[in-house]
Amino acid sequence: MPASHAVRRDLVRKQLRAAGLDAGLITSLVNVRYLTGFTGSNGALLIWTDGSTADRAVFGTDGRYDTQRASEVPELEPVLARECAVALAARAGRDGARLVGFEAHQVTVDGLAALVAAAEGVELRSLGRVVEGLRVRKSEQELLLLQRACDIADVALADLLLTGGLRPGRTEREVGRELDGRMLDLGAHAVSFETIIAGGPNSAIPHHHPTDRVLVAGDLVKLDFGAEYEGYHSDMTRTVVLGEPAGWQQEVYDLVVAAQRAGREALAVDADVREVDQAARAVIEGAGYGEQFCHGLGHGVGLEIHEAPTLSPLGAGTLAELTTVTVEPGVYLAGRGGVRIEDTLVVRGTGPELLTQTTKDLVIL
Amino acid sequence: MPASHAVRRDLVRKQLRAAGLDAGLITSLVNVRYLTGFTGSNGALLIWTDGSTADRAVFGTDGRYDTQRASEVPELEPVLARECAVALAARAGRDGARLVGFEAHQVTVDGLAALVAAAEGVELRSLGRVVEGLRVRKSEQELLLLQRACDIADVALADLLLTGGLRPGRTEREVGRELDGRMLDLGAHAVSFETIIAGGPNSAIPHHHPTDRVLVAGDLVKLDFGAEYEGYHSDMTRTVVLGEPAGWQQEVYDLVVAAQRAGREALAVDADVREVDQAARAVIEGAGYGEQFCHGLGHGVGLEIHEAPTLSPLGAGTLAELTTVTVEPGVYLAGRGGVRIEDTLVVRGTGPELLTQTTKDLVIL
Repeated sequence: MPASHAVRRDLVRKQLRAAGLDAGLITSLVNVRYLTGFTGSNGALLIWTDGSTADRAVFGTDGRYDTQRASEVPELEPVLARECAVALAARAGRDGARLVGFEAHQVTVDGLAALVAAAEGVELRSLGRVVEGLRVRKSEQELLLLQRACDIADVALADLLLTGGLRPGRTEREVGRELDGRMLDLGAHAVSFETIIAGGPNSAIPHHHPTDRVLVAGDLVKLDFGAEYEGYHSDMTRTVVLGEPAGWQQEVYDLVVAAQRAGREALAVDADVREVDQAARAVIEGAGYGEQFCHGLGHGVGLEIHEAPTLSPLGAGTLAELTTVTVEPGVYLAGRGGVRIEDTLVVRGTGPELLTQTTKDLVIL
Repeated sequence: MPASHAVRRDLVRKQLRAAGLDAGLITSLVNVRYLTGFTGSNGALLIWTDGSTADRAVFGTDGRYDTQRASEVPELEPVLARECAVALAARAGRDGARLVGFEAHQVTVDGLAALVAAAEGVELRSLGRVVEGLRVRKSEQELLLLQRACDIADVALADLLLTGGLRPGRTEREVGRELDGRMLDLGAHAVSFETIIAGGPNSAIPHHHPTDRVLVAGDLVKLDFGAEYEGYHSDMTRTVVLGEPAGWQQEVYDLVVAAQRAGREALAVDADVREVDQAARAVIEGAGYGEQFCHGLGHGVGLEIHEAPTLSPLGAGTLAELTTVTVEPGVYLAGRGGVRIEDTLVVRGTGPELLTQTTKDLVIL
């Protein structure tokens, strides 16, 4: 979609111009993809702010990706160099830029020194998270891709559960392998992150790597996973139980369901991110499990699995329309087990839209 | 192996002390793993250079990883904070450090500003690639893990080929999925990188993502893949042909085999990395295909899939004993097909040791 990439570049250009910059050097690969569609592993973009041409920008990559560049970014002048960001900085200097923005949250200290050395006569100044800021609000086109990524994850989980793939006797690793395979079979380009399958006491570890532990009757089993589709990520968690739940398991499960619902219902345009977190956290704190919910409520999701905004007591700001976020409270009882329930949703003026749609009733296997 | 981690920390400490630093702040997660054994996704290490205790160091991570820290890094005092590097910088200032080294090749410009703001009264100075320098020479323990990673890849490929998994009618993606699955079944913790399966004209693209293109008789098929085992990566490439090779296919194949052999034979302690590259490149250039070998000859491999040294015309330095490198020349004929052959080897005084052992005779399927 080159047209929308040009539109995005122009939104960046306006902010760079407002900051008094002659040009901006974009080096975050995700941001480069957002602004150009380029999917290779080495790329950079120099956006000029003058009005000399409609969309003045230069695209950098190296010779390995020249064919891919010609197909994905045909509309921009290319510069081919292994150190393509340095080459673009040099180019900015040669072409008369005096003040150039760079992504200080992404460029390393050594990397900045290389840019400074290459860009003669140029002052480099942080341009901030301009592109990340634009990425927060998704287009309807992006939402379609996110919906597809969520659909793949939902269907893969349903197929796994309906065909008995999650059962006593299998290991966490085996279940994870099957779930990943199902997502890839369904069209995922990759998994969003290393799938978490955590059974029994392991379910009390918020970030658990699947092991060879064999699942047994009585286990809570937490599954946290997602699919990547055309660069966009889904993220969801469900917790199921093997056999009839013990009293404490049902109690914790019901509590997390209630907290997750409260968190979802708090998603509104202009809502303060700390208040959204608190809406869910208050439910868990009210039941006396506040210390067992040891992480934030959620995070933005899109071209990155974790992106702005952060829904947590340490977050800042309010929710914009068309932002995609996760809502994922959990309660973890060390040595016994834990429950987390997570959806990916879109913030809309008409209320939150659920992209992950697997039931949140307790599934007993 | 906590003992060897302490030994490694002491080697770092000596270099930091020689540089006049009171302490060094290690923030590269791979370097933190190398120096502590920690495998989580958020960690940092502060190494003091004074001799007040035998192994004075503080380990930082956040609450999610406290259990894992207690098991993996029990010997070091912990600091728990989400921004653990910032917390360690603050700690360094409070405990009287005046000059602290940081990893300027890894810390972002914004990240350095946060460290400076936290570390009162401390001057921060680049400590360089001290840890990467130590990582170049592998211990025999590390070489065992690398050998295991290579064995998994070798066996997975053999099983794929012997059972007819690579055949006309399958797609690149299907073959890649099966190869990845076989590596995981054989004990890989993950694949080293996104497996490249490139058939027919796609084999002329050095870095190709598997597609739904169906393999057909007459294709050259390039397979570039590896296994990760206990954090260590293998990397190998083989190119096979579906059916009797055409004359040009056999010619290019034989040429790449000869170049790869020349490159392997040039691996010697104290050999200049550019001369190793040239040993292989000269063979290809001599046959008139110099421009069709558009990348370096190889790279170091270990805890990272690409690490020091770089074997290329742009590389610098000489090979140290016990360095693990790839040797991977290729010739790519746009629109027709390409051949790359790659092994992972150890540089030893007694001559190069081959870790990937699949045949380099042309396999006709």
